[in-house]
Amino acid sequence: MKITRPTLLLNKKKCLSNIEKMANKARAHNLRFRPHFKTHQSAEIGNWFRDFGVECIAVSSVDMAVYFANNGWNDITVAFPYNIHETDKVNELAQKIKLNLLILDPGTVKFLDNNLTSEAGVYIKIDTGYHRTGVPVGNIRAIDNILDELTRSDKLTFMGFLSHTGNSYTARSKIQVKLIHDQALESLGILKENYVGGRQDPEISIGDTPCCSVSENFYGINEIRPGNFVFYDAFQYNLGICSAGQVAVAMTCPVVAKHKERNEIVIYGGAVHFSKDRFLNPDGSENYGLVIDLKEDGWSEPVEGVYLRSLSQEHGVISATSEYFNSVSVGDIIGVLPVHSCLTANLMKRYLTLNDKYIEMMR
Amino acid sequence: MKITRPTLLLNKKKCLSNIEKMANKARAHNLRFRPHFKTHQSAEIGNWFRDFGVECIAVSSVDMAVYFANNGWNDITVAFPYNIHETDKVNELAQKIKLNLLILDPGTVKFLDNNLTSEAGVYIKIDTGYHRTGVPVGNIRAIDNILDELTRSDKLTFMGFLSHTGNSYTARSKIQVKLIHDQALESLGILKENYVGGRQDPEISIGDTPCCSVSENFYGINEIRPGNFVFYDAFQYNLGICSAGQVAVAMTCPVVAKHKERNEIVIYGGAVHFSKDRFLNPDGSENYGLVIDLKEDGWSEPVEGVYLRSLSQEHGVISATSEYFNSVSVGDIIGVLPVHSCLTANLMKRYLTLNDKYIEMMR
Repeated sequence: MKITRPTLLLNKKKCLSNIEKMANKARAHNLRFRPHFKTHQSAEIGNWFRDFGVECIAVSSVDMAVYFANNGWNDITVAFPYNIHETDKVNELAQKIKLNLLILDPGTVKFLDNNLTSEAGVYIKIDTGYHRTGVPVGNIRAIDNILDELTRSDKLTFMGFLSHTGNSYTARSKIQVKLIHDQALESLGILKENYVGGRQDPEISIGDTPCCSVSENFYGINEIRPGNFVFYDAFQYNLGICSAGQVAVAMTCPVVAKHKERNEIVIYGGAVHFSKDRFLNPDGSENYGLVIDLKEDGWSEPVEGVYLRSLSQEHGVISATSEYFNSVSVGDIIGVLPVHSCLTANLMKRYLTLNDKYIEMMR
Repeated sequence: MKITRPTLLLNKKKCLSNIEKMANKARAHNLRFRPHFKTHQSAEIGNWFRDFGVECIAVSSVDMAVYFANNGWNDITVAFPYNIHETDKVNELAQKIKLNLLILDPGTVKFLDNNLTSEAGVYIKIDTGYHRTGVPVGNIRAIDNILDELTRSDKLTFMGFLSHTGNSYTARSKIQVKLIHDQALESLGILKENYVGGRQDPEISIGDTPCCSVSENFYGINEIRPGNFVFYDAFQYNLGICSAGQVAVAMTCPVVAKHKERNEIVIYGGAVHFSKDRFLNPDGSENYGLVIDLKEDGWSEPVEGVYLRSLSQEHGVISATSEYFNSVSVGDIIGVLPVHSCLTANLMKRYLTLNDKYIEMMR
């Protein structure tokens, strides 16, 4: 393949293997597998999931739901707190597909009941400790208030509780991820106890890639919604969630300058290509990506001690060992595992497979 | 105007005033004004500069040069180290317009001389202390080597030295910005001394918004290339480079959840809308944007103590005072001055003016 500018490579084989592994895990634990499609945002990659029996998906915006509905998906959860300003689009969608919405307050339930023109499922967003958003898992009064409003609606069906254990991303190790996951499961189990035996037992839906990847405990869970696992990335690898070999995307960038006095290599590839997500190296310095060697049939494990140390709008600066520095010339194409594949894919807007085919994303 | 999802508002009046101020400063100091168009990336906004006498521009990619050349600009500097893999596009461009390229090494000069089919101007990229890229300002031997190669070329015309004092962004105060600028000017002046009286005195081109905004010292400078000043942003305001009133863009985002227990407000507006650039609050916490009150004719100064504390893919979490928290409801539209307007604009892909007109960007 001929790379001339920053390009996002996709190793389809690794990607399929990641999908298969998660689908098998869901099956083994008797879980509904509702993968989050915000990571790849691509109709073509979405279709790869069908071979593994996937029939329902999660997305993070109404526009994404429209895109995937137009590409044949008819059971979609918009896993984002309901935005009352997009009701026209939601009404159009809810007519055509089985749509689940996410709510956190009785006011939004009332709004939906007054403004929805079709039926929809509803999950209550629960916060098990991430503290981004959700009704605190122990706040039974607040949940009761939402449920009271829901029972008055003939358009909305209460599906259950949905949680995103995003605090797993702040863990420092695989063991800590498992602990956070087990605590979330325990508190969700206690929550559910309050509501079993009603009209219908509430479902529990969870979904973050770290927990779903490393845990074998899914006690009380009905559905998982991981997204990032489809590609993984340098962040997940650094956290010990996946092997480097499982990372299915890599940026390829031309070398445009070398600075011997600092063993630094400047690439064409910046914040508008990678995004500015980062993790910290053991010495506290920032890491924006791990350098790999590009090969005919893919790429190598990360090169020890060689990483993207900074990004500006179009420049990336690689901190290298002397050995690596000397092996690279201006004009070479360098490979980098991105720190956060979701945000990198969102910026790059398409993938190049190893057999030189472009895969498009929603725009 | 009706906001239904994350939208980037543009106050044209403020934008025009920012352009006028910088154009006047350039004129007062007898400098060529070559604004960097990577911030707005819009043909329409580009045209606003013409009324202030602007005839030449800088861009950060070959694709951006093609876009603006197609929109009537015929004197463009690609202010990014030359990428040898885009020579076909560059050859097409150089036929049509006056094109300046940026180089750092004799090898690239030789490559250009062998592969360019039209004439082009060349600036040597100089590093005055930012340490992103450029020949170190004192490395006369390295510069001589490039110049030796340049004299052998009949296609390339040496224009001068080009520097980006990006270390001004790491300053903690306006005074520190001025110091960094003065040091850069002094070292560039010494560099120039080595080369005056040759075939043609080398030009000195500098260009970062902090230095160009706050300094009145442009001794020895021929050209300025600031870009961000067209909008400014919360980062520049926090650094003391501009007033809050000069920031010409604001994100508008629907409120989707409130968390009384933490005085936090969740908005539909995340990393895929804002980018993840940030600055640190005095207490060391991260700040991803300053909240403002939206008004009929624009917006207020930043609301004291209310800011975007975190961003995930589509969520933004605002840390609020009790007073502000209580004044906001789910469904309201909130305004936020973005931390880095260049990256936010690059993600949003269009602007909405205060009189409800969309302005498109390059795609």
